[in-house]
Amino acid sequence: MTTRLHLHLLSDSTGETLENIAKAALAQFDDVETVRHFWPMVRTEMHLDRILAEIAQNPGLVVYTLVNPAMRRTLETRCAGLGLPAVAPLDPVNDALSAMLGQQAKARPGRQHVLDAAYFARVDAIQWTIAHDDGIAHEEWEEADIVLAGVSRSSKTPTSIYLANRGFKTANIPIVVESPPPASLYRLRNPLVVGLTTSADRLIQVRRNRLLSLNQQPDTAYVEEEAVVRELAFARRMFADNGWPVIDVTRRSIEETAAAIVSLANQREV
Amino acid sequence: MTTRLHLHLLSDSTGETLENIAKAALAQFDDVETVRHFWPMVRTEMHLDRILAEIAQNPGLVVYTLVNPAMRRTLETRCAGLGLPAVAPLDPVNDALSAMLGQQAKARPGRQHVLDAAYFARVDAIQWTIAHDDGIAHEEWEEADIVLAGVSRSSKTPTSIYLANRGFKTANIPIVVESPPPASLYRLRNPLVVGLTTSADRLIQVRRNRLLSLNQQPDTAYVEEEAVVRELAFARRMFADNGWPVIDVTRRSIEETAAAIVSLANQREV
Repeated sequence: MTTRLHLHLLSDSTGETLENIAKAALAQFDDVETVRHFWPMVRTEMHLDRILAEIAQNPGLVVYTLVNPAMRRTLETRCAGLGLPAVAPLDPVNDALSAMLGQQAKARPGRQHVLDAAYFARVDAIQWTIAHDDGIAHEEWEEADIVLAGVSRSSKTPTSIYLANRGFKTANIPIVVESPPPASLYRLRNPLVVGLTTSADRLIQVRRNRLLSLNQQPDTAYVEEEAVVRELAFARRMFADNGWPVIDVTRRSIEETAAAIVSLANQREV
Repeated sequence: MTTRLHLHLLSDSTGETLENIAKAALAQFDDVETVRHFWPMVRTEMHLDRILAEIAQNPGLVVYTLVNPAMRRTLETRCAGLGLPAVAPLDPVNDALSAMLGQQAKARPGRQHVLDAAYFARVDAIQWTIAHDDGIAHEEWEEADIVLAGVSRSSKTPTSIYLANRGFKTANIPIVVESPPPASLYRLRNPLVVGLTTSADRLIQVRRNRLLSLNQQPDTAYVEEEAVVRELAFARRMFADNGWPVIDVTRRSIEETAAAIVSLANQREV
């Protein structure tokens, strides 16, 4: 039987952390139909009042990251009055930090989004990555942090974008049997080059779906098993010949592939 | 005086939630130099053992999201032995969910990254967004969830990418005085069209930096104050004439701009 749960996420900032927390926690429960109420940028008592009215209309679990003490008190008191749990998942982390650092947490909403050098470096990484998708501007690859190589539809582009969001300038290059990549790929010194591979079955399935969505005839070498197996073997040989680490994306989400690549990048730095 | 803190982040999945939690918590403290140790995909006792050796070498705060009960116990016991706090910020959320739903949390690592329909829709959104950056393929705008309009360097591209990561197919179009946007922009029915604006000062500064980084002569109408003010006024008039909501990005990070746009999109759905 499916349970219906209203989930209210209140943040004085963008609410991204809360969204991830809710997603991770809900993944541990079965048969829940969640109605998510997302309340970012809650920074005034008036705004909070309006939200509390909505919470009273749709009672459920309240999870929040407000740092203003007065607003926290209002929310806690009003939720208690409604008989609803209100959880502040950052509190235990703040308490532990407070004890270790010997200072109180400051009540500064949204301070993690300060427009500092790290922020602008991250925005630069996104711009750079988009400008170097799919083999574009390969003469600038030496500036990259990471270069991804892989056959068509091995998730190079979304993985690159994901890495860019985490601050890595990422280029990617399709490996095509008939058309070798630029020679500069084999001479890179600065970037971490990573090969992406996948199973032939999975690749054929993804490509078939791709062709269908483009309304194209699916009966080509692009999806023909023998050709795909040959193509994957060609890419694997190139990765091995150059000593590039390889990640099999067959059963991995973009986030998991990116996490594995970040691990490789961190190991190299040590 | 700056305190130095080793921060160990252990996840049995990608660790993205932990990274956000750590960033949000640390923003509430001053004068801390954090040495971040990032340990994603921790799924075996052997891996955990190796990490515990590193933690012993660099004692500090441990924050973790492991769901396996045996591994949690090992980590807690060993950290206690080292006199180090180990915080599991998802626990209070899981406990509240468990109480409300009347079921135990399952110990399933990485389950939030399951390759389900929502996941593939998100990957599609990223591909779609990249293919519709900077006015490309405007004949397909009706498929978009969001269309961003704004003058050059008003952060359209990184904002689009950020929204794509959250599952919104996002197109963007530069507003240029001399070259009107395609007429289809004014006829869109499905997408939410949002105008991005910024202060002239800020825009001139960002554009000067841009030209400098491209080694181009900064003395053009692109950065000349009167021209920039005229350009911004032209864009604002277009936004007003079409009744598009406007977001001023002058003091906003990409994440904050995106959160404001998601709020607008959610309001429209209600």
